[in-house]
Parts: sequence; structure tokens; C-alpha cells
Amino acid sequence: MKHLLGIETLSREEIERILETTQAMLEISQREVKRVPTLRGRTIINLFLEPSTRTRVSFEIAAKRLSADAINVSASGSSLSKAETLTDMAKNLVAMNADLLVVRDRTAGVPQMLAERVRAPVVNAGDGTHEHPTQALLDAFTIRQALGSLDGRRIAIVGDIAHSRVARSDIYAFTKLGAEVRVAGPPTMIPKGIEMMGVKPCHSMPEALDGADVVVMLRIQRERLAGALFPSVREYAATFGLGFQSLRYAKPNAIVLHPGPVNRGVEIAAEVADAEPSRILDQVTNGVAVRMAVLYLLTGNHS
Amino acid sequence: MKHLLGIETLSREEIERILETTQAMLEISQREVKRVPTLRGRTIINLFLEPSTRTRVSFEIAAKRLSADAINVSASGSSLSKAETLTDMAKNLVAMNADLLVVRDRTAGVPQMLAERVRAPVVNAGDGTHEHPTQALLDAFTIRQALGSLDGRRIAIVGDIAHSRVARSDIYAFTKLGAEVRVAGPPTMIPKGIEMMGVKPCHSMPEALDGADVVVMLRIQRERLAGALFPSVREYAATFGLGFQSLRYAKPNAIVLHPGPVNRGVEIAAEVADAEPSRILDQVTNGVAVRMAVLYLLTGNHS
Amino acid sequence: MKHLLGIETLSREEIERILETTQAMLEISQREVKRVPTLRGRTIINLFLEPSTRTRVSFEIAAKRLSADAINVSASGSSLSKAETLTDMAKNLVAMNADLLVVRDRTAGVPQMLAERVRAPVVNAGDGTHEHPTQALLDAFTIRQALGSLDGRRIAIVGDIAHSRVARSDIYAFTKLGAEVRVAGPPTMIPKGIEMMGVKPCHSMPEALDGADVVVMLRIQRERLAGALFPSVREYAATFGLGFQSLRYAKPNAIVLHPGPVNRGVEIAAEVADAEPSRILDQVTNGVAVRMAVLYLLTGNHS
Repeated sequence: MKHLLGIETLSREEIERILETTQAMLEISQREVKRVPTLRGRTIINLFLEPSTRTRVSFEIAAKRLSADAINVSASGSSLSKAETLTDMAKNLVAMNADLLVVRDRTAGVPQMLAERVRAPVVNAGDGTHEHPTQALLDAFTIRQALGSLDGRRIAIVGDIAHSRVARSDIYAFTKLGAEVRVAGPPTMIPKGIEMMGVKPCHSMPEALDGADVVVMLRIQRERLAGALFPSVREYAATFGLGFQSLRYAKPNAIVLHPGPVNRGVEIAAEVADAEPSRILDQVTNGVAVRMAVLYLLTGNHS
Repeated sequence: MKHLLGIETLSREEIERILETTQAMLEISQREVKRVPTLRGRTIINLFLEPSTRTRVSFEIAAKRLSADAINVSASGSSLSKAETLTDMAKNLVAMNADLLVVRDRTAGVPQMLAERVRAPVVNAGDGTHEHPTQALLDAFTIRQALGSLDGRRIAIVGDIAHSRVARSDIYAFTKLGAEVRVAGPPTMIPKGIEMMGVKPCHSMPEALDGADVVVMLRIQRERLAGALFPSVREYAATFGLGFQSLRYAKPNAIVLHPGPVNRGVEIAAEVADAEPSRILDQVTNGVAVRMAVLYLLTGNHS
Repeated sequence: MKHLLGIETLSREEIERILETTQAMLEISQREVKRVPTLRGRTIINLFLEPSTRTRVSFEIAAKRLSADAINVSASGSSLSKAETLTDMAKNLVAMNADLLVVRDRTAGVPQMLAERVRAPVVNAGDGTHEHPTQALLDAFTIRQALGSLDGRRIAIVGDIAHSRVARSDIYAFTKLGAEVRVAGPPTMIPKGIEMMGVKPCHSMPEALDGADVVVMLRIQRERLAGALFPSVREYAATFGLGFQSLRYAKPNAIVLHPGPVNRGVEIAAEVADAEPSRILDQVTNGVAVRMAVLYLLTGNHS
């Protein structure tokens, strides 16, 4: 594994190796002195061409806890609009002896393109509607933490499946790890032929959540709801929002995940997001550990 | 002391403990190698939702001189407008095992609100017109450095008292430390009932500065002067600006403080700001040391 | 040498000392653990008032590889428009015991002005159309790396000489190091009296490149070409762009430099920029090493 561009091309063994490394990294973040010398003197670049405070901070903290030098590069302040400019920027950063590039971009395929053109490892931190592999890894880790294993578990993913890179990466990760995955949302949000990804499309919450061990609620872009894909926010919340009412369709001890930031009262009720079944903050904690594991595994030759 | 949200709720003993710790920290910044391992492996977040280069840099340097990992989060690039979003962001940062949040916001009460909702210590780096406690602490430290003690000293604070978080925090700090405080400014800038804070309102420079050991000049927002609160910048400067002329009302060796950035020729003449009585750059130097002390005292269990 | 404000005032010996130190620094960036403790506990400020991702990142990496604490300050988020405000900001940063300021500004002379007013060393990271000394140093280093020495070498600099700080600094550096320099571009881009800098102005590529060991192509601001200085981008590329065709006027093993970012198809053909004669990425690699050398030499008293 030279890059982490998506979950689609990973084997179950590769995913499991990352999750096992994550377990060791998690322990570091729980110490008082949250820093190990593993990546001392390595230069990690966070190239965030689409703004994302949370994911950038998670990667930056991950790099620093491994003692790497983390350098943030954002699009603001420089015009990084075109493929040529982007490739040039990446080549420049690698010429400065960067050891790894973390790349987020609005356009699907940008991390892949850069990975083909530079000699440093590239980590996809979210590219358009394509993939968000570290999110899927932290979701899988959080589920293993709660339930022991994904094998044979029933997982429902609810929301705008068609436009969600989290949904795509989650589907790849969960199915590879042996789970049975159902996806749900209004017809405009479920892509045709989604069955080919090995999941079952559902058109109602009772159907999707029936017997579920895990419910993954996706963030809804309110702008998307205004017209094109669904009549109104209120109607979406009533039909596909998760409250304690609809959660009863799942198993009694089902856990709830959400990639954040949460729209309380839209895709999930505040009472659910902030209560027992929610593992949302565990996801955030595990996110740093997953990213530490990925940085560690991709940089190699550790001191 | 779990948080530092304001001076109002601190005891004299707590303030003095911070000032004594500051003295030790000041010495570190004067070394060639300005770094001690005290907070190694701790994660300090600078959550600056109102832009402020100087205060952010001061906190960032303070964290780094203690070997902490400092992470900057600003509002630009993410929409942090509402209380829910802010709380979510703070909870996320704490879930990433942040050890302390430094929070600046345009709205009074935001640091307090976050302190009630997250389990990490919160330091108020300025919230609306409420408080700016580290500024008051560095002001008090600078006065002690110059005069030995605040007990029985006469201190004049001049400017827009009604809208200044610096004035509020200074008043609390100076009176708790035994000083006699006078405030001065045009009537529109002196809040009704200010006497209840234990200070004497004055309406002229001769009255305010009479026998003063210390003169604290506040930064004037030029926009505020344009109309609503005062007829003109020129008239403000003539009536409440500090020149060597008006400084003669104070004691011969009186010192002058200003929180910066200075509007030369408005609230203070360049000749005064840049000359002997001014301790403005000492304040800046002491600001880093005060913030080191606060970070140190609030994180606890040091290595 | 207390500051690095430009190449104009450096002696050949001073330039050579920097280049020799660069050689040692280059080796550090090629290690796995790219970090030496030389500037541990020093505070380096990157005060970038004109946005520049590449140069800022290069300085930030340079500081971190020497174990310094690097603090980024940009203009966005604070209004740093006037000389007074700028001087105040610089004095504040130095009052925080900053050990060195790296300054980039749109206006020629700003680093010089700050150097006269603060007691810390100042490095000019590019000021208006005046100088960009670290660029010239990395260019000279790259040429020495490829050709052994600049003595007696023929170097052509092509582009908007009149408005390029890179051209000015390069001319000073190359001539001081014994090279014979020719400059070329349309008449509107060649300043009157350029001969007084010890270079020969040329008005065609064959004339400029004749027998050249090195060709330095400057970035063309497309906006400049739209009208005022030249009829069209296409005509500029045909007349002063570098392709393999025009490169044949130079010596067979001539090398090509460009300060980046490259406008492929405008001042340089993609096939040249990305092929054998181009040393563009070497320049980027050497840029970090040059900046490490400059930070090292200006901070003194190393641990």
C-alpha cells in the first residue's frame, strides 16, 4: 500500500491491518503526554483545496502526535484552480522533500491524479463525491470498538447516498469486512444500480433499519433539499430523519454514527445525536487514531 | 481554577498566583533557547472566531515555548455562526483529546457557554464587550513590574469604557489588587452606574489623571467616533487624547499602558506612545509570559 | 550580515558563505529524519503580507528542519495596510522575543523599513519589484550545483525584466559571482539604462541565448500582457517563449531555470519545463536549503 486513495481498491487484510494499527495509536491519544517520536523529522503536508476545519485539524493533530512536522496549505491565498497548477504545487511540495501529502479537493479524482504524478505517498482526505477513506476506516473502527466485529452485522446508511463520498467509502469498507449493508433515502438520492455495490436499497426507515446493529446517518446539504431532490427540510426530517421513534426499528442496542457536522432536527434529532446510542464523539476520537495509523503505515522506515 | 473566563470571578489570591507564575515564565522568553518541556505532548487549540493576529500569535508562541502542540482554528473557511455549531466544534476538538481551548469570539459569553459544555479547560481570549482576562493580567503584571505593587496606586483608564472588554477586565483586576481606579471618557462612553464596579467616573483628563501612577489609554474605534458617540476624531483627540501636555496631570513618573494596536494621534500622541513613560512593548512581552502561566496553571499534572 | 534585505549590498564573500552553508543544509533535507536541533527554542515569524504559498511553505519547512518554532502571520484577518501599522506589528512580534522576521510585501522597501525599526534580523522574502534575495541565492546555488561555478558562465534572463524582483536579485548575484549576464524581452519590459547593472540588453532570443550556459525564464503575468506591455500572449510566446527550438541557440548542455509557478505554453513550453535541461524542481529543493542557511547564519549563537 503506497497511497490511500480509496477503500474500493483495498483488500480486507489491508483494512484490518490499518484498524489494528489504529488500536495502538488510540492508546497514545489517551496519555497525558500524547506524543511519540515515530515520525520525527518527517514533513507531512495538509493540502486542503476544499475548506474543512475538522478533517484538517484531525490530520494535523495526528501528524503532531507522531512528532512529524505538519504544514498546512490551503487554497485561499493562492489560485489552485487547474490540474496543471495543482500538479505543479504537489511536485513543488515533494521537491521540498515532503514525506506525504494529505489532499482534499472538491473534484473527484484529484488525489489519484496527484498520486500518479508525484513520488510521495498521497492520502485522500475527501475528493468530491468519490471517496473519503479515512472516514470509512474510523467508522469501521468505531463499530468494531462497540460490537467486536462487522462480520454478519446489519448496517443501515441513510441519506443522500448518491452524492456522498462517505456513503461510498463506508459501503466498500463495511461490505469488505463482512457486514450486510442497506442504504435508504428518497429515490432521487439513491443511485440506480446501487445493488451492484453489494447493498440493498430501501425506500423507508422501517425497511432500512429492520434488525440493524448500526445506523449511519449522513449529513444533509440543506441547499440540496431546497427543491431539486426533495420537497422540504421538514418533510425530509419526517420521512428519513432519525428520532427515537424510528430508531426502534433497529435492534435494541443499535449504535448510531454520523460523520459530522450534525444538522440537529434534520437528518437526526438532537435527543438521539446527544444520547446513549450515538457514537459520534467516539468517531471523532477514533478519527485522529486512524489518521495516525495511516500516516504511520504509509511513511515506512520508522525511527 | 478550572477555566479562565474573566477576572470578575477570580479572588485576589488567584490573580496573584498567576502573576507569580508569570514571573517565572518571563525568564524563559529571555533565554536563547526559549523552550521548556513542561507541556510536551499536550494539544492546545486556538479557536479564534473573531480575527486577532496579535493575541493569536501571543497564545501560539506561549504554547510552543512550553512545548505544547498548538493548533489554530479560525472561522474563515468554515461557518461557525451559531451556538450549536460552535458547541459541536468545541466538543469535536475535545473529543480529539485537546487539553485546552483558547476561545475568542465577537459575542459576549461564548467562552463561558463552551466551558459549561466541554470537559476541557477554556481560556477566554476576548469575548465581545465582556472580558479579556489575559489582557488585564498582563496589564497588572506590567504595573507591578514598574511600580512593585498595585496597592494604593491610582490608575486612570481613558476611552470608550462602555464598550471595552479591556476596561472591564482591568477594572476588576486593578481594584482586586488594591488600586484606586478612575475612568474617563465622553459621557456616551461611560456606562451609567459604573461606580458600582468600585471606580470613580471622570469627565475630563485633569480630573481623571490627577495624581495618577498609571494611565491606561484604550484603543478608539474610529467608526464609533464618526457620529454616534462623539462629534469627531479631532475633537476626541483634543479632549481625551493623551499627549505630554495632559500627561502632566499625572504623577511625574507615571507610566502609560495601551492594549494595542495604537491609533497614534487619536487616543495617544505618537511622542507619548513611543517614549519613556510608555510600557506598551513591555505589555506585549509580558503578554506571552502571562499566557504561558495561564496555560501552565490550567493544564495541571505537568511532566 | 545582520539582515538579508537584498543581494545588491552583499559582497561576493558573503554570497559564497551562504552558498557553502546551503550545501551542508541540503544534506539534512535528504535524510530520513530531516531535523537538526540547531535552532531549537528560537521563534521565527513568517510575516507574509502578500500571499505566497510556495515561498511561505519553503521558509516554514526550513525553520522546522532546524527545530525552530515557526509562526505564520498573514495579512488576511487583520488590516496591515499602512507603514505605521506594519511597524507596530513588527515591533510587537519582536517584543514577543521573536528571533527573526521573514517579510514579504507588495511594496518595495518594506523589509528595509522594518529592519531599521526593529532589533531582530529581517529576511526579505520578496518586496514589490525590488528584490527577492533568497530566490537569487537558490538560483546561484542551482547553477553551481550543475556547472561547478558561475565564473565566466554566460547566463540569459528572459521576460519582464523591468517589473521582476527575481531578475534584479539574479542580476546582482550572477554578476557578483563572475557570470556574464544578458537580459531579453520586449522593449517595454527592459528598463532604460539596464546596462548600468553590468548586463547586456537583447531584443531577441537568438541574441540573448547565444552561447548561454544557463537560461532563466521569468514568469509572465498574463494581465500585464493583455494590452499595455505586449500585444498578445500568443505573440509573446512565439517571440520570447522558450521551446526546444529556441533553446538550440544556447550551448548544447545549457540548463533552464524558472522561479515558478510556470505558465506552460507562455514563457516556456511544457516539453522544456518538464524535461532534461530544466532544473526547476532542483531550484525548489535548493530553496529550502538556502533558507535554512540564511536562518542559521542570521540567528547566530547556535546551540
